[in-house]
Amino acid sequence: MATRPYLLISNDDGYFAGGINFLIETLAPMADILVVAPDGPRSGQSCAITPIHPLRIKEVRNEPGLKVYKCTGTPVDCVKMALNELVERRPDLVIGGINHGDNSSVNSHYSGTMGVATEGALQGLPSIAFSLCNHSENADFSPLRPYIIDLVFKAIGVGLPPFTCLNVNFPNREKFAGVKVCRMAKSHWTQETARREHPWGGDYYWLVGHCEELEPEATDTDRWALANGYVAITPTTLDNTAYGLIDVLSGVL
Amino acid sequence: MATRPYLLISNDDGYFAGGINFLIETLAPMADILVVAPDGPRSGQSCAITPIHPLRIKEVRNEPGLKVYKCTGTPVDCVKMALNELVERRPDLVIGGINHGDNSSVNSHYSGTMGVATEGALQGLPSIAFSLCNHSENADFSPLRPYIIDLVFKAIGVGLPPFTCLNVNFPNREKFAGVKVCRMAKSHWTQETARREHPWGGDYYWLVGHCEELEPEATDTDRWALANGYVAITPTTLDNTAYGLIDVLSGVL
Repeated sequence: MATRPYLLISNDDGYFAGGINFLIETLAPMADILVVAPDGPRSGQSCAITPIHPLRIKEVRNEPGLKVYKCTGTPVDCVKMALNELVERRPDLVIGGINHGDNSSVNSHYSGTMGVATEGALQGLPSIAFSLCNHSENADFSPLRPYIIDLVFKAIGVGLPPFTCLNVNFPNREKFAGVKVCRMAKSHWTQETARREHPWGGDYYWLVGHCEELEPEATDTDRWALANGYVAITPTTLDNTAYGLIDVLSGVL
Repeated sequence: MATRPYLLISNDDGYFAGGINFLIETLAPMADILVVAPDGPRSGQSCAITPIHPLRIKEVRNEPGLKVYKCTGTPVDCVKMALNELVERRPDLVIGGINHGDNSSVNSHYSGTMGVATEGALQGLPSIAFSLCNHSENADFSPLRPYIIDLVFKAIGVGLPPFTCLNVNFPNREKFAGVKVCRMAKSHWTQETARREHPWGGDYYWLVGHCEELEPEATDTDRWALANGYVAITPTTLDNTAYGLIDVLSGVL
């Protein structure tokens, strides 16, 4: 490679979050980095975009090989702003994260971290989302370091097929049992709202709930991998056609 | 069926939009309906949820067999609020739409209308997203009426497999050539930002762009169906695992 790899990094916890800054610190010695990340928390933003409000960006770091911008938009907006306005060359890899919290199983549908990887892959770039199953602001990301370096450079070297990305979740441990390439476990969220009364009257609601496993016995899922101490790598496709249904439904509809 | 079917309807254009009100008017004679829809436009909200702000709901219609609420949240928030706080019984079908605009191909990733159907399916309910390829507020939805009635009652009658939903897009026509069950066409958005200068200085950006076809010659896609006058029905899976990559990557990572 004639030049150093060029990485585009975003997240959904904001440019100041521990996870994204751990990623920057880990990869900056080995790669040129452009960070365009939200100016505040954007958890649960999925692939949301901002069509009806203007977007603003502001440079917050400009060092040799490293530029960091904050953006008023969603994680996907950040990737679009980066690729259309800020990149110096075509990135070798798009990275979302490291998210403070679990994006395995159906959480990937709601995840802004996965929004970053999805948008990167939609733009034809190898893309990875990294998440640690620990919501704390002060989570310790250091056990992830060798795995992140390994996955980043393998993804750049080997590439990923078009319209795919990787959803990588780390269990909250000091040591990992290894990595497992796995499928998304089926689950669903339940008891998701909590009502409160405003001091001056009127109800409002918080989104809460917990994620219920629908196949706790399966051993080939991301949930199993995490529960057993493995780094869960779920290859993810952006072609969400249910191919098995095309013939069935053609006969009915 | 002992009672009339019970439909949960939401959208991303807001409770006042033409598309959702056409759906209500079309289906109210045949079904009990609960509408929980955003209180303003939420286009491009994908599967976004609102974890850090409280949600509020307000009843705007209460008639025999029809209740309409507006909600401060995203389309997915609306479905969660409906299922956790407002439903009278388990809905027979969740419907998103009718969207004012095209949700075929990769637009389905950004679509709040598809967010509604995705959330319904994640909760184990048969779910359909309807979209008309016409962004106008005053779009004429009347040609869709027989197709919507047909698809809604077939979906209730036949059911849909778990973890799947239907993404149904109508071309902007007075008459349709028929229906095609098809796959998602590959495409990507390009030239997506436009810079403007504020009167008092400082740049801001609008998300714009156009969707570029990556396989215009394919005849089995939603794009082909729409371009040829067909109603495009894309069966969609919520299990976005790239199964074909599991073995390949297990050997590399």
